[in-house]
Amino acid sequence: MTEASPLARKLAAFVALSDEDLSMLDRLHQRRRKFVPGVDLVHQGQSNQTAYILAKGWVCSYKLLANGGRQIVDFQIPGDFLGLRSVLFRTADHNIEPVTPVEASEVIISDLLSAFADTPRLATAVLWAASRDEAMVVEHLVGIGRRNALERTAHYLLEFGARLKLVGLGTKMSYACPLSQYLLADALGLSAVHVNRVLRQLREMGLLTFHNGRVTFDDFEGLVALADFDKAYLDHDGPLLR
Amino acid sequence: MTEASPLARKLAAFVALSDEDLSMLDRLHQRRRKFVPGVDLVHQGQSNQTAYILAKGWVCSYKLLANGGRQIVDFQIPGDFLGLRSVLFRTADHNIEPVTPVEASEVIISDLLSAFADTPRLATAVLWAASRDEAMVVEHLVGIGRRNALERTAHYLLEFGARLKLVGLGTKMSYACPLSQYLLADALGLSAVHVNRVLRQLREMGLLTFHNGRVTFDDFEGLVALADFDKAYLDHDGPLLR
Repeated sequence: MTEASPLARKLAAFVALSDEDLSMLDRLHQRRRKFVPGVDLVHQGQSNQTAYILAKGWVCSYKLLANGGRQIVDFQIPGDFLGLRSVLFRTADHNIEPVTPVEASEVIISDLLSAFADTPRLATAVLWAASRDEAMVVEHLVGIGRRNALERTAHYLLEFGARLKLVGLGTKMSYACPLSQYLLADALGLSAVHVNRVLRQLREMGLLTFHNGRVTFDDFEGLVALADFDKAYLDHDGPLLR
Repeated sequence: MTEASPLARKLAAFVALSDEDLSMLDRLHQRRRKFVPGVDLVHQGQSNQTAYILAKGWVCSYKLLANGGRQIVDFQIPGDFLGLRSVLFRTADHNIEPVTPVEASEVIISDLLSAFADTPRLATAVLWAASRDEAMVVEHLVGIGRRNALERTAHYLLEFGARLKLVGLGTKMSYACPLSQYLLADALGLSAVHVNRVLRQLREMGLLTFHNGRVTFDDFEGLVALADFDKAYLDHDGPLLR
């Protein structure tokens, strides 16, 4: 058996995957494609979109408003679905753009549906993954609505840490992060200058360092306390479904 | 056959439901329970939660923060799942409280999973419903992040209109709305005084009237233009899956 894909690693947090489930997941990864920054994978308002499973690299999903505003809704990392909602809705309600060079597997919706029919445990796992995506957006809403800039930034960077660790792309203490302060600003509802100031403050408090494309938690527990961060929406101690 | 439940009406926007799907949905509605305002249906941080399908009344889901803040994430109306995410996560990441007296059917998670195994089309429909819930949270995030108070309030009230119409609880032009200005304020990230001012402004502009528990769109197209509202994330012209 090949090494587990990031998606298989992620779903394994929710459900103990059988060999049948795993080979079904492998089959969903066959049509691998590459994308570069600057070209949207999914484009708001277009119909007949394709869904992808992200295998390598980071992307961001965002909405453009008629008033000219842009809100980054989330970033996706390996193991995440891209554009699943757009396929289910027939029309994309958001844009997805690579942040780094990206490799993603095209998922034909009929393949996904027949996979559900063959392995209903997989359907439940995908429902869990979609609920987890929703929980992240909820946290981003709560962050912009009710957390100050320091708490909000700390929460976001802790969330990345837990997500990346689950798919084997970071440790509890550190991870590679390709995001510019401009991208973080558009996600956090702050200016890039403000993000820069907040990151300096977090470093001076001895909590976190974001330097040369790497986030390091200098005081993990202190950061968790500051951000009131509870990773229960991202990871579990052992699969829920056996 | 009994009259279609609000959930069946909603899912029918996505998938043409067979008689087998419909009777499966009926079976999920057997354990009907009643709840009153002031008592949480789902309580943040608790484990072993139950999921519900809302049959009558309105509830709100919200998060409480350690810093004392509260953010209403969404309101649920008949046909919506309550606490599905909490069941999949083992621990509830939010609270759900009735806004009005409520009737909801308890869904045992094992019943839902075996329903998925028997009718995979239903699993896809539930995944669509979960994606739709996520799309609403995305809109609320974009609203708080990038829309001004007038656009944001108009968008929220148009969204309720489309959701209620889909489950047969309103017309294109009007619906009963039990929300106080305090609840709206906690959802919109505004003060109740500000909400009051925005609603007066919308009325004076001839766009919308919210009076005596009823929202009336006085100029639907004008309101849609103001809010840049596209209902594609809520409803479809005929089911996507036949």
